[in-house]
Amino acid sequence: MAGRRVVLAFSGGLDTSYCVAWLREAGYEVHTVSVQTGGFDPDELGRIEARAIELGAETHQVIDAREELFERSLKYLIFGNCLRGGAYPLCVSAERMAQARHCAAYALEVGAVAIAHGSTGAGNDQARFDIAFRCVAPRLEILTPIRSQGLSREQTTGYLRERGFEVQAKTTKYSINRGLWGVTIGGGDTHRSETPIPEEAYVITRGPGDWPGAAREVEISFEQGVPVALNGERIAPVALLEALELMAAEHGIGRGTHVGDTILGIKGRIAFEAPAAVTLIAAHRELEKLVLSRQQAFWKQTLGELYGAMTHEARYFDPLARDLEAFLASSQRHVTGKARVKLFAGQANVVATESPYSMMNPEVATYGETARTWNGAEAAAFVKLYGLQDMLAQRAAAIGDAASGKDER
Amino acid sequence: MAGRRVVLAFSGGLDTSYCVAWLREAGYEVHTVSVQTGGFDPDELGRIEARAIELGAETHQVIDAREELFERSLKYLIFGNCLRGGAYPLCVSAERMAQARHCAAYALEVGAVAIAHGSTGAGNDQARFDIAFRCVAPRLEILTPIRSQGLSREQTTGYLRERGFEVQAKTTKYSINRGLWGVTIGGGDTHRSETPIPEEAYVITRGPGDWPGAAREVEISFEQGVPVALNGERIAPVALLEALELMAAEHGIGRGTHVGDTILGIKGRIAFEAPAAVTLIAAHRELEKLVLSRQQAFWKQTLGELYGAMTHEARYFDPLARDLEAFLASSQRHVTGKARVKLFAGQANVVATESPYSMMNPEVATYGETARTWNGAEAAAFVKLYGLQDMLAQRAAAIGDAASGKDER
Amino acid sequence: MAGRRVVLAFSGGLDTSYCVAWLREAGYEVHTVSVQTGGFDPDELGRIEARAIELGAETHQVIDAREELFERSLKYLIFGNCLRGGAYPLCVSAERMAQARHCAAYALEVGAVAIAHGSTGAGNDQARFDIAFRCVAPRLEILTPIRSQGLSREQTTGYLRERGFEVQAKTTKYSINRGLWGVTIGGGDTHRSETPIPEEAYVITRGPGDWPGAAREVEISFEQGVPVALNGERIAPVALLEALELMAAEHGIGRGTHVGDTILGIKGRIAFEAPAAVTLIAAHRELEKLVLSRQQAFWKQTLGELYGAMTHEARYFDPLARDLEAFLASSQRHVTGKARVKLFAGQANVVATESPYSMMNPEVATYGETARTWNGAEAAAFVKLYGLQDMLAQRAAAIGDAASGKDER
Amino acid sequence: MAGRRVVLAFSGGLDTSYCVAWLREAGYEVHTVSVQTGGFDPDELGRIEARAIELGAETHQVIDAREELFERSLKYLIFGNCLRGGAYPLCVSAERMAQARHCAAYALEVGAVAIAHGSTGAGNDQARFDIAFRCVAPRLEILTPIRSQGLSREQTTGYLRERGFEVQAKTTKYSINRGLWGVTIGGGDTHRSETPIPEEAYVITRGPGDWPGAAREVEISFEQGVPVALNGERIAPVALLEALELMAAEHGIGRGTHVGDTILGIKGRIAFEAPAAVTLIAAHRELEKLVLSRQQAFWKQTLGELYGAMTHEARYFDPLARDLEAFLASSQRHVTGKARVKLFAGQANVVATESPYSMMNPEVATYGETARTWNGAEAAAFVKLYGLQDMLAQRAAAIGDAASGKDER
Repeated sequence: MAGRRVVLAFSGGLDTSYCVAWLREAGYEVHTVSVQTGGFDPDELGRIEARAIELGAETHQVIDAREELFERSLKYLIFGNCLRGGAYPLCVSAERMAQARHCAAYALEVGAVAIAHGSTGAGNDQARFDIAFRCVAPRLEILTPIRSQGLSREQTTGYLRERGFEVQAKTTKYSINRGLWGVTIGGGDTHRSETPIPEEAYVITRGPGDWPGAAREVEISFEQGVPVALNGERIAPVALLEALELMAAEHGIGRGTHVGDTILGIKGRIAFEAPAAVTLIAAHRELEKLVLSRQQAFWKQTLGELYGAMTHEARYFDPLARDLEAFLASSQRHVTGKARVKLFAGQANVVATESPYSMMNPEVATYGETARTWNGAEAAAFVKLYGLQDMLAQRAAAIGDAASGKDER
Repeated sequence: MAGRRVVLAFSGGLDTSYCVAWLREAGYEVHTVSVQTGGFDPDELGRIEARAIELGAETHQVIDAREELFERSLKYLIFGNCLRGGAYPLCVSAERMAQARHCAAYALEVGAVAIAHGSTGAGNDQARFDIAFRCVAPRLEILTPIRSQGLSREQTTGYLRERGFEVQAKTTKYSINRGLWGVTIGGGDTHRSETPIPEEAYVITRGPGDWPGAAREVEISFEQGVPVALNGERIAPVALLEALELMAAEHGIGRGTHVGDTILGIKGRIAFEAPAAVTLIAAHRELEKLVLSRQQAFWKQTLGELYGAMTHEARYFDPLARDLEAFLASSQRHVTGKARVKLFAGQANVVATESPYSMMNPEVATYGETARTWNGAEAAAFVKLYGLQDMLAQRAAAIGDAASGKDER
Repeated sequence: MAGRRVVLAFSGGLDTSYCVAWLREAGYEVHTVSVQTGGFDPDELGRIEARAIELGAETHQVIDAREELFERSLKYLIFGNCLRGGAYPLCVSAERMAQARHCAAYALEVGAVAIAHGSTGAGNDQARFDIAFRCVAPRLEILTPIRSQGLSREQTTGYLRERGFEVQAKTTKYSINRGLWGVTIGGGDTHRSETPIPEEAYVITRGPGDWPGAAREVEISFEQGVPVALNGERIAPVALLEALELMAAEHGIGRGTHVGDTILGIKGRIAFEAPAAVTLIAAHRELEKLVLSRQQAFWKQTLGELYGAMTHEARYFDPLARDLEAFLASSQRHVTGKARVKLFAGQANVVATESPYSMMNPEVATYGETARTWNGAEAAAFVKLYGLQDMLAQRAAAIGDAASGKDER
Repeated sequence: MAGRRVVLAFSGGLDTSYCVAWLREAGYEVHTVSVQTGGFDPDELGRIEARAIELGAETHQVIDAREELFERSLKYLIFGNCLRGGAYPLCVSAERMAQARHCAAYALEVGAVAIAHGSTGAGNDQARFDIAFRCVAPRLEILTPIRSQGLSREQTTGYLRERGFEVQAKTTKYSINRGLWGVTIGGGDTHRSETPIPEEAYVITRGPGDWPGAAREVEISFEQGVPVALNGERIAPVALLEALELMAAEHGIGRGTHVGDTILGIKGRIAFEAPAAVTLIAAHRELEKLVLSRQQAFWKQTLGELYGAMTHEARYFDPLARDLEAFLASSQRHVTGKARVKLFAGQANVVATESPYSMMNPEVATYGETARTWNGAEAAAFVKLYGLQDMLAQRAAAIGDAASGKDER
């Protein structure tokens, strides 16, 4: 019977509920697994387990992947200040890939012959699951009942109800994905760029009407790019993210919308709430400005953008991702210090930063005023040679145009 | 006497006032010029002219460079969504370079033998002036009395007062640079990253206590990336920027701080207020998401960042700048449409966008739900091959590690 | 009957011969088209037409796409000095995409309902055909008998012979693709990286044993990056490429091997002979060094690499390709001048270059010796400020490490 | 007296000879140091020491920096396949920077108050020396007699002869820089791009007339990107480079010319001979193609180019250089294997490569022929979705153009 053992990534939702029942009827011994990446509260985990067993799962396993998610992905998203399209902190993609990696590893551990997920054929999640499954557990068969059978909500509901399983009527217009890095909101009005997102769509952040009247300041400490303390108290990264989310959500921070491209090439808009991610990245970005060289800042921006794109596009297993992580980690060796962030009226404003590695050294020169390290003649000489090639290019262009008869134009 | 004719970029401030008087004493016939890039109001221009003549200038010329500034620089900063360090809209650099170009062209026109500016040897402006002077008017001598003589505020004040010229006591702690693209605030508390910028430093934006209670929505129309209408009314770009600045400043939009690197290599913090630039770039960026391909978005981000860096670093005359402008202009051919922006509580939120060129075509597929263009089997096949190389790389790594005896680790 | 009209890209080979016969039996009215991109000689074109008609094609059309291929693709590959992996001049990809575009346009012209190609499911050509067909003629059905039916050489041969069509036994171990930009050699020993390519695999270049004993020099003139003359005689680009191929092939120039990645993600090795492309790119690259700014050279290298990747990967229709073409064209505005190339012993050595736009202006400074434009003090000042940030970074690192207690390590 | 101790980077040439004598007369206690980076043979080192003492140096020190040069620079230039302008292996820059670092460290060690070099104000070497001196020994004064005094060859010769020191008449038209990574040739005809380099300019490689008639094959083994064996025999990197230089020089390999930009912005042409570097980089580049992912290859190319530019431009101490080294080192983790290189007629052709980590796995698919991992329908589905966004972009463009009335054009 173990020859028909399948591990299923299980969220307790309609699609994965269908998968349990259908796989079981198809003769599989179903082992469900829920990977905690910050989206489930303890009560919910209990309900999910009960549901899995009710639907016929042989066993149900909860895997807490939060720390590993931070260490293997979120950390680098902070290092890279990764915001898709200048806005969206990639709330879903890193989490889904982590869930997929853990499911596949668990499938190997329990000796499954197959591994299943409930994603449709439309979105990005199928790619994250399939690719992680193939890379971590290349010999296992991949089963995707929802995608393979092209099922609608009505069909899966009908199937389950026929078999006596309760299915709650859909109570929300939106599909919500919650995790350590934030909430992503799809469905309903989110899909059309022409209409605003209604207030009711948001889950964890307060709306303008409920913002506190007074600002709150929080000091975030970083060591080599990693957030390590809040208001001077050392705290592990996962707990720090959870605490910061509460503080920033109260002030309505981290809301936004983003129109992005799916891996399959279509565009879609999502709304999101990422109070902790948005606040942390703002703090980190401003702290970095004290310690990075001009060229580090430029290339880290470009390669951070690339790392974000790879994370979004399920390219976690491309060896390039490791190379970018090495680059990003190296760039953080002096990103140690503190940022004070004012949380107020939907915004996280970084009002002050300091670092023992700061290059804003008042011993050297005060921006725009006096300079003790060089004098005016040196500055003039520098500028003369700094602009030399531009001047030569202008001169060569004039000579060349004259020779080509273009000077008469 | 024309053999000693000099053109001086004149702002009416202490340093350029000194330059008029000193150049005249040094035997030059001084012709002052003030290039309007949005920073002077009409009254101020009158006062500046009077001051120039009082100090001994032979003539004073005002050149309105606003339209040209938009066409040759700001337009491309919008195309590139250029924000230095993810924050600062490059308020000063494009303007200073435009001023320098016009001064140099004017110097050629009036047959001057020299051209002068009042910048010190510490900051970026000297580079913008020197390089533009050398590229536009390579045969003219460059005179920089403040930089050459290494003068302090006390010294220049003393010099002018000795000669009977009135010098106002410094009334503000901050040095303010205002222009079409925003206000940049230096001096005083801005220079130390460890202290917040006080409310009093800001010039054009309302502080939190004065924000209107209700939001204001504005619809910005773009044609090929250029903003062409506000709330449906066509308006020339310069007027549009001025109108939008008023609207957004009322809601406190566009404030921020930025720690940047000078061309000479030191770091400095500035504060800024750029209500129009910040609102326009937000609107433009979100509109672009409807029409750009995934790879266009990535590379435009990188090359826009580069264009911003070149603008900041006085690289306007590097031929690469023209190549980047060609790239950016090409990328905008479908950036036509509208963005609705909610101005509220210090933030410009783009709540809706639409474009006749939008790729968010509901005919094709609705993000995350159903897909009419392909089926589940096709999606599965795509993902399989999309992830093929990652899988091969994993497999090759395993084989290689085994062969190298690393599998035992 | 026109309702069943299909246009087939026809090369006269086994696979496309099968397609004619099979499509006709399947009830289609087959119109074959051969797009000349430099790979067919006139006699061959006649034989191909006869074969098409013999196999049952209703009509056969020859389209000469050489000029358009140069204007829309090869020109940009020269501008970008595009060599995949530092070696391979993309001989096949641009040509195949041009063929596909022309087939699709022809299908629209003759009112076909479908369009067909004979590519397998293994390589890159299927992507070039499918994507061009869908982009140019989105409403036409795409038929791919070889890929759909998964046919082997034996099966297609059998099918044709059964129907009385002659099929020549395979006479060569290699599959040869020839065009304006060179010859690409696959099959046989090419696929394994561990074995050298035997001499017999090469088609147009002489082997070491047959090289002429004396070198030949050729002078290539460029205007804005486009080759316009050979040895001082103006000649259209296509004719220039053909003439240069003869000269360079005699000296064995342009041979090489390249291991590349297919669009589907697998690696394969090919051999190639591209005497004209290799010689032209060498000449163009060296000429560019006289006129491009340092930053232009860097970014053109990167974006040329990207343009080459997009060409290889069938991304011709990504709007980014147009943006890169705009960049590349802009970069060429001063790439006017001459390069003298010595053809000898398998190598094209660029021995001399000149341009009216050359920045190697002896008026300015002679590299490494004397400098008339600046003096030693100015150079010292420049270097001091040029290296200022590096020095500050070192100092900040020392201070930070001391503060963090790392100095004891 | 130790208060006037100066360390001088000493090559034994005219300029540094002048420096010894002049510094001594100026009251310094002169300690000369020659840093061996492969350019000096043992006899020469003896002569250099004697000359230093003769000229009045208190002590002379030889520092062998070859291994460290390899570990800190050349290794990364191999990892990055760094060839400036597609041609020149950066023979001088890494070496000069290593020499400068060692001089500065030695100056600290011996308690010098100043450190000196003999570079002029025209070229790149002054930047390499000054910056390394300031970064390694920031408190020491930098003395540059040749640059400060703007001396000509005649003046330095005269100065030395007046004091009774023999100065050999210049015997060569060229200035030669030799080191572990190759020979760079300046002066004479090299500076004008319009004239070929004469045969006599070359130092270590045989000219066409002296090439051996038969090819020689050499097998180079790499481990994680580092060359570790020649023809199967393990050998340390420095010795490997020296042995490979002899083999490849015999066949005339590694000659070329390059027009580059100096740090100060002027262009100059050099000739070079880098038999070992050119051969090694060719072998390494081809080996990499077996094991890198497509995206790794693209980004490594771009970042390798950047690393080469930084090396050339004396940016060794920019912290970005460390980040790039981290990226490059990471990218090499599977670059283990062998390349067979045919040395013949001035060319190093890589004829075969193999790696335990090769992704050219015949188990998967043979390029262009059959595919066991996927079938035709899967390939078709992949291509359909791979090209989806391009098709959507075309469609959106058509719709948008129609809506904008552009379809009538």
